[in-house]
Amino acid sequence: MNFNCIVAQSGGPTAAINASLSGVISACLENNNINTLYGSINGIEGILNDNIVSLYDTFKNQSDLDILKNTPGMFLGSCRFKLSEEDQFKKIFNVFSTHNIKHFFYIGGNDSMDTVLKLSKYAKENNEDVKIIGIPKTVDNDLFGTDHTPGFGSAAKFIATTMLEIAHDTYIYNMKSVTIVEVMGRNAGWLTAATALARNEYNSSPDLIYLPEVPFSTFNFLNDVKRLLKEKNNIIIAVSEGIKDENGKYISASSSAEDQFGHTSLSGTANKLENLVKMAANCKVRSIELSVLQRSAMHNASLTDINESFDVGVFALEAASKGATGKMVTINRPSTSDYNPTIGLVNIEDVANKEKLIPRHWINERGNNVTDEFIEYIRPLIVGEANIKYNNGLPLYMNINHLSKNVI
Amino acid sequence: MNFNCIVAQSGGPTAAINASLSGVISACLENNNINTLYGSINGIEGILNDNIVSLYDTFKNQSDLDILKNTPGMFLGSCRFKLSEEDQFKKIFNVFSTHNIKHFFYIGGNDSMDTVLKLSKYAKENNEDVKIIGIPKTVDNDLFGTDHTPGFGSAAKFIATTMLEIAHDTYIYNMKSVTIVEVMGRNAGWLTAATALARNEYNSSPDLIYLPEVPFSTFNFLNDVKRLLKEKNNIIIAVSEGIKDENGKYISASSSAEDQFGHTSLSGTANKLENLVKMAANCKVRSIELSVLQRSAMHNASLTDINESFDVGVFALEAASKGATGKMVTINRPSTSDYNPTIGLVNIEDVANKEKLIPRHWINERGNNVTDEFIEYIRPLIVGEANIKYNNGLPLYMNINHLSKNVI
Repeated sequence: MNFNCIVAQSGGPTAAINASLSGVISACLENNNINTLYGSINGIEGILNDNIVSLYDTFKNQSDLDILKNTPGMFLGSCRFKLSEEDQFKKIFNVFSTHNIKHFFYIGGNDSMDTVLKLSKYAKENNEDVKIIGIPKTVDNDLFGTDHTPGFGSAAKFIATTMLEIAHDTYIYNMKSVTIVEVMGRNAGWLTAATALARNEYNSSPDLIYLPEVPFSTFNFLNDVKRLLKEKNNIIIAVSEGIKDENGKYISASSSAEDQFGHTSLSGTANKLENLVKMAANCKVRSIELSVLQRSAMHNASLTDINESFDVGVFALEAASKGATGKMVTINRPSTSDYNPTIGLVNIEDVANKEKLIPRHWINERGNNVTDEFIEYIRPLIVGEANIKYNNGLPLYMNINHLSKNVI
Repeated sequence: MNFNCIVAQSGGPTAAINASLSGVISACLENNNINTLYGSINGIEGILNDNIVSLYDTFKNQSDLDILKNTPGMFLGSCRFKLSEEDQFKKIFNVFSTHNIKHFFYIGGNDSMDTVLKLSKYAKENNEDVKIIGIPKTVDNDLFGTDHTPGFGSAAKFIATTMLEIAHDTYIYNMKSVTIVEVMGRNAGWLTAATALARNEYNSSPDLIYLPEVPFSTFNFLNDVKRLLKEKNNIIIAVSEGIKDENGKYISASSSAEDQFGHTSLSGTANKLENLVKMAANCKVRSIELSVLQRSAMHNASLTDINESFDVGVFALEAASKGATGKMVTINRPSTSDYNPTIGLVNIEDVANKEKLIPRHWINERGNNVTDEFIEYIRPLIVGEANIKYNNGLPLYMNINHLSKNVI
């Protein structure tokens, strides 16, 4: 009873999403029941548009799989696509049938899990014998049902490293300064909170942390900054791009430029706060956006994250082989004292279209810092350095255009 | 004939400036004629304000020197201070005399070399027996008399790595996009040109490179972008913060926001170009500023750069011991085919207050790319990865506040 499998990637990129792909490929290669593993280009769109490649042709040797494991971005390309029409479902299961595909693995975040939910429901209702398994990934760490998400640890490691290096950069001048660092996160503040990891025996920065989970008060913010400027020279502030006022309005959406001209693109959140501080305090103020670097900085990825991401990929095939469908692979933490994660499954209904925020009790009462309990939670996730190979001074990553010649 | 030495750091930070400090300390520790090495806190200001520490007390063992070698920022703090008054010179040489200081090492860029020039002139005119040696550092690579500057290679390595990772991040979507990456460099484009290193067998980005050395034409720029958008999906552009129009006016200084409200802080150069492209092309446009990360990202430093930076520190003492003064240490490249650098000296008059730009023949005629000759020049400088120690997932750097207890 030989059959084929297919895998796709969706949503925003992370440093770890190709590690999960590498895990799926490795597991399939070792399974004698599987003839081949297909890859769908640009997520579910590849299946809809007959843009499918054979991954066995591309990854014939272990060294290529190791390089893929340590390559940022998404090797199969991405999409942002919500399944809705009956025809789309029919087309997808036709493709599965034509190519004798029995397992579909979808690596993605909340939206991708909606696709897993819909496809597994359709399979059940139509007696289609295809197992549909979701493999989590998102730098945002906002998926329910899992202790944390693959990709988060690497982004957190880069963000914390960069915050520490910004402290080293900032502390050199004997003058007052405020540096505001904007981190990704529209609704969940996990990545911004990760900046707290940069604190150590000599560095107390970030001095303030503002998250989307707590309404942002400009009045309290400026008071926090002015109070701290009396105590020390260099203030470093971490802020989520998605902080909102008590009415739920994005702080970044209320720049003077936008009010009068609609130029939202001119002003990010940190830039908005920079201008506020400049008006309130007589010192050097700088804003920094970590931008896409935080989700693509493979060169500083967490080994823990990369290995776990690989493992959830391997586990996905194991689960499908045992008959699971309509599930997402999870990482669980049985003990809070030791970090010994296990891998499991959760029903996709409990994950799809939901967003996990930082628990309020992991944020201090004033809403400008995180608690020690949060630090204990996040610390193990950034441990270890990924095994990046270098060539001529630059990381050796997988050729992004490698696939074009293998379209089936 | 035992005596003391003093060292200071000045200007903007780099990943490699503490490697040079580590070199000076190591060399002094091995020299039996030297009783101790002092450090002046915040550049020349430390000497003027009696803020001097004993570095022998701080660096008693080799492992601390190794950590210092791989610590970003400036361990002794920085200043931006131009010597001008007679009293300042008298004060400085009084301090030298009081502490039996015979060698002064100043690690810095163009402005710091002005201090070396003035102090060495003063010493000569006043028969002061103190050797004054400049140790180059600047991410900008704009110092004359040396093939390249310590700090440049590490910044170039981070910038090229990040550009490659931005390409991986950008190429995942099957849609048209323009990404504009702003790199440091007010007058010299060396760092921006370093983005060309990210090109490889599968990545042709950056697709366009704009440098301060060539007047920027908005008309040509938009034509370049529109032409490329017809050929490929994802365009990535590298631009120096300091690009200017044919009248020498900074492009970043002419944003619509500034024109009407004087809000220059709202708009960087890349942001300005982002808005221009948005008006001219119907696609996703994003701007990214690498900001201070490019000069502080020690975690991705070039081993070649860190080792050379250490070596120029060691050489500085050797030169002073042989009687040199009013000189800056240089890195020379005797052969352009093999990279076998040597270390030497240049007269400080030939360096101070001058700025070395990219030769025009290393930029293509249209002014939107660099030549292969430039790539051959820069490639060896980013080779090798610095030996960073990690602790709990974060780089182990030298305690910035370590010195406070050692003020003499």
